[in-house]
Amino acid sequence: MTTDVNENLLAWLKDAHAMEQQAEHMLKAQASRIDHYPELKARLESHLQETLGQQALVEGCIKRLNGSASVFKDLAGRMTAFAQAAGGMTQHDEVVKGAIAGYVFENLEIACYTSLIAAAREAGDSETERVCEGILEQEKSMSTWMLNHLPTVTHDFLVRSATPGQKAKV
Amino acid sequence: MTTDVNENLLAWLKDAHAMEQQAEHMLKAQASRIDHYPELKARLESHLQETLGQQALVEGCIKRLNGSASVFKDLAGRMTAFAQAAGGMTQHDEVVKGAIAGYVFENLEIACYTSLIAAAREAGDSETERVCEGILEQEKSMSTWMLNHLPTVTHDFLVRSATPGQKAKV
Repeated sequence: MTTDVNENLLAWLKDAHAMEQQAEHMLKAQASRIDHYPELKARLESHLQETLGQQALVEGCIKRLNGSASVFKDLAGRMTAFAQAAGGMTQHDEVVKGAIAGYVFENLEIACYTSLIAAAREAGDSETERVCEGILEQEKSMSTWMLNHLPTVTHDFLVRSATPGQKAKV
Repeated sequence: MTTDVNENLLAWLKDAHAMEQQAEHMLKAQASRIDHYPELKARLESHLQETLGQQALVEGCIKRLNGSASVFKDLAGRMTAFAQAAGGMTQHDEVVKGAIAGYVFENLEIACYTSLIAAAREAGDSETERVCEGILEQEKSMSTWMLNHLPTVTHDFLVRSATPGQKAKV
């Protein structure tokens, strides 16, 4: 049995849409819990806005291909437990683990859009290619920020964690 | 209640050791299943050897801090289902999803070692800092290869997938 390039492209766009829904939930949960790391909180909130825009863009590509966005499934579904855990972690080092999880999720998105761009090119769908390239740049920018900021979050957490009377967790 | 920098550093090194055990299982499972994507298979096998070396290096750091490597837990534990699924996926696009999952796992490792380097620096543990910097370079190199190779895997999968009589999945 063969599968047409367009069928694969549509299935992957649906995965991407589901992934952006997970990203929304994770970013909301994390941003709302953070108290003592204002730079991180602000960056999560600004990426949440980008994420909502990305959802709409991906949905537009799905509709142009006569598909409909489905509830999350497949790879994004497998990331669900991870993302939910990351959004509601209760370990003492929640902010560090959350920052790591956020960076990891950005890289799931980077990989999915990189693959989608190749698929859109193969399908000759230049509009999907263009949309995915735009989203990919936003994900790369968020990923870079998260990794560059991780040593600061780690350092601040360790200092707060070792200081009596200071809350370090979030 | 405060937590000492060294306690956090030791706990995170144990997480990293558990993560490298997961990486070993995932890489073995993926490499053994791949039939038709020889470049990817070879790169996974070569990174498996690096991973075994990394396990030993991290265990050395744990022992110097008078700790003992534990079974996987915490963030690596949360990635377990994801990694296991990635190693034994049965979807028709297994090779693409597996390549994405492999790239994502590399980025979990990149984030963990980036955070560990900051923690080792804070603890004044220059040997752990040096070891983690060495491992980080290997993870970054694997991550870059996986992302650069993903469009090729995607393209090859789509072509095989659309060709009657060719196996595309792995």
